[in-house]
Amino acid sequence: MRERLVIIGADAAGMSAASQARRLKGPDELEIVAFERGRFASYSACGIPYWVGGDVESSDELIARTPEEHRERAIDLRMRTEVTEIDVPGRRVRARDLESGEEAWTAYDKLVIATGARPVRPELPGIDAPGVHGVQTLDDGQALLDTLRHTRGERAVVVGAGYIGVEMAEALTRRGYRVTVVNRGPQPMATLDPDMGALVGEAMSGMGLEMVNDAEVTKILTGEDGRVRAVATDDGEYAADIVVLGIGVRPNTDLARAAGLPIGEHGGLLTDLAMRVRGHDDIWAGGDCVEVLDLVAGRERHIALGTHANKHGQIIGSGVGGDYGTFPGVVGTAVSKVCDLEIARTGLREKDARAAGLQYVTATIESNSRAGYFPGTAPMTVKMLAERRTGRLLGVQIVGREGAAKRVDIAAVALTARMTVEQLTALDLGYAPPFSPVWDPILVAARKTVTAVRDRG
Amino acid sequence: MRERLVIIGADAAGMSAASQARRLKGPDELEIVAFERGRFASYSACGIPYWVGGDVESSDELIARTPEEHRERAIDLRMRTEVTEIDVPGRRVRARDLESGEEAWTAYDKLVIATGARPVRPELPGIDAPGVHGVQTLDDGQALLDTLRHTRGERAVVVGAGYIGVEMAEALTRRGYRVTVVNRGPQPMATLDPDMGALVGEAMSGMGLEMVNDAEVTKILTGEDGRVRAVATDDGEYAADIVVLGIGVRPNTDLARAAGLPIGEHGGLLTDLAMRVRGHDDIWAGGDCVEVLDLVAGRERHIALGTHANKHGQIIGSGVGGDYGTFPGVVGTAVSKVCDLEIARTGLREKDARAAGLQYVTATIESNSRAGYFPGTAPMTVKMLAERRTGRLLGVQIVGREGAAKRVDIAAVALTARMTVEQLTALDLGYAPPFSPVWDPILVAARKTVTAVRDRG
Repeated sequence: MRERLVIIGADAAGMSAASQARRLKGPDELEIVAFERGRFASYSACGIPYWVGGDVESSDELIARTPEEHRERAIDLRMRTEVTEIDVPGRRVRARDLESGEEAWTAYDKLVIATGARPVRPELPGIDAPGVHGVQTLDDGQALLDTLRHTRGERAVVVGAGYIGVEMAEALTRRGYRVTVVNRGPQPMATLDPDMGALVGEAMSGMGLEMVNDAEVTKILTGEDGRVRAVATDDGEYAADIVVLGIGVRPNTDLARAAGLPIGEHGGLLTDLAMRVRGHDDIWAGGDCVEVLDLVAGRERHIALGTHANKHGQIIGSGVGGDYGTFPGVVGTAVSKVCDLEIARTGLREKDARAAGLQYVTATIESNSRAGYFPGTAPMTVKMLAERRTGRLLGVQIVGREGAAKRVDIAAVALTARMTVEQLTALDLGYAPPFSPVWDPILVAARKTVTAVRDRG
Repeated sequence: MRERLVIIGADAAGMSAASQARRLKGPDELEIVAFERGRFASYSACGIPYWVGGDVESSDELIARTPEEHRERAIDLRMRTEVTEIDVPGRRVRARDLESGEEAWTAYDKLVIATGARPVRPELPGIDAPGVHGVQTLDDGQALLDTLRHTRGERAVVVGAGYIGVEMAEALTRRGYRVTVVNRGPQPMATLDPDMGALVGEAMSGMGLEMVNDAEVTKILTGEDGRVRAVATDDGEYAADIVVLGIGVRPNTDLARAAGLPIGEHGGLLTDLAMRVRGHDDIWAGGDCVEVLDLVAGRERHIALGTHANKHGQIIGSGVGGDYGTFPGVVGTAVSKVCDLEIARTGLREKDARAAGLQYVTATIESNSRAGYFPGTAPMTVKMLAERRTGRLLGVQIVGREGAAKRVDIAAVALTARMTVEQLTALDLGYAPPFSPVWDPILVAARKTVTAVRDRG
């Protein structure tokens, strides 16, 4: 019996699932229909800031696989078609062709929900004025690039100082803009502890970026031509020929919620380890629209990140195709950069540890990316958290220059393996003068954290 | 009661032990006497190729702490003084002042043996001719630099194609020499499997280095002035104005052996986990003169590497100072580079796995250091070994360009935690386009190895 798989959303999670399912089951066994409301499928949204900044020349480079390539593999990908309803008892979805406006029901045997996330867009006066841009989709990126090409602007304001905000600040600087980053919190990168976020703020100021912290945007001000001219905050006005919103994203789960599917406290779909929606053996969900288990905190989180979406898709495709795989959870690893500043984190921040009921100690060290005498060695600051008494590693944050960010992977594996900081001190990490000091910065941090566990644990 | 600690050998292991012991016990409690036969203490031997190549300007930069700095911390460091005998029952060592020739006995309560390794130096005709250099010590490095400064040479031969050999090949290239690497094996880097070593050989040839494999040096040929003029092998002669020996090292344990201390099958001292010489509670040993437990193979190995020596010293110093620490063993991580080629390995090669009685599968993949569309992305080859049936990770080898080598740390931690390759596929590694493809190369390799375990495990 030929089954039909319906996929809602044709980006990383959805199309990875489609590809993996197709690898396992041919068109005779499995029909695959994917609905995508946008103009693009299977692209790297994480690459948009680098496209806007000019590192990447064309949006084509961000597309992993074109709709035509998917169709060649017998995946019926319907672009510009928005699913408007999921009828769970009837095992069908209703979809609207956004060009023609026509709607129709499509029955499914198996369903994958990969509706992604949508950017937080505060309801502010002027938010829809020309010159105000989000950067969530390729369409958004194209619109921003069009504005950059046709505007002779000098000043840009980026609202938000998380990953997207700082990456967009770099991108606009590279486009010749004087950039102001307006940030609600006391320092950028709220995904770091305040002391580490402050290092990022200092470095960004040193790069010539104007950092405005503790400021709430109240209004987008427009000129006589109706275009944006400034951003008003509770802390003053900032002139802007262009405004980029990089405030964060939320799971896009209105459809799932309306269908009665289980939604968690962060607004994401809840799944089992095989990425099946809880209580629904024939419905899978993955990517930015689901919550994932934080293995360190022991509770769900929402993390919008392409690498998770790809893993989810691969596991979903295996399940749909009759094979087996699970997504055990995350430890919360993220890396980013602003110009030559590298930023990384994994595991818990201090406030996460407190929220999880964990008591902890911390240690912060400065070290170098290479042997101190080796050309190009660059300083980095590493902060480490360990559980009180047990000394179990809880988290690592790194702010530095070249060679800093990916060192967080060492901690990501150690967190997964539930290692103690004492165990970390003995790790056999790669050493040669061009690559590391004789004590890798992670080992130096671990040694100091061991002492903190002893003294205050 | 004031005790006396005697240390034989004042490089990384010995002086790390001295410093840590001094941190824990002041001069009133512990007298520390360290004997060093050379002219330098506490230096980075690993930095010598970069000093010779010109990356590092002065040998001073390679010295972590001068003899005077040690003495200021109440460590009685006696340079150019060689220990010639250890009298274990009498708890004393005999030392000769190499300047005056005087010998004297020094009693100890506690002894640390940190006599390091010595380079393999084949007994070949002409091996002592001017222009033939080892590169084990700072003195060796200085002699080589003197020769480079006073010789108007064009051709250099490096004997050996392991870490030291390839690093010296780069260094001499940077000094303007045309370099021939004469290698006994079928490809360079015998610390890699042959297929991965062959990639290094191809890359080195591509850099303009002449690679002569499967060649045994039979003689060093000298000119009328008595200086080296060529290296003769069983495969022809290679002109040389300068010859560098980089054949490897062996534990320097003649003293220990003569004293009846336990020596392992690789010629290194055998210790317990606290780095005490087996059967001797008051004698510690560490650094290049000991064997270490290979946690993957479950047997001893000899690895001469500064990072282990520093860890050993730290643990020995803790033990001597009345604190506690252990060195659980190694997984065999090593990283190196030749020009822009990065080389890394950890865990077992195929022949190590066979020797350990392990059955295994392998997988090899090619991937990139960054997102495929990101500027500067560079290809790398990753080979992975996993145990048959269990899928436990056994080893990883990487050959690539920028960003390749230190990725081996991910595998080093996973080996320590005895993870399976299936577990590896779910690792939450740092992802952003400037740092990694959406599937990190280690994850890509793990996925392919999982398939190999299923198909052939």
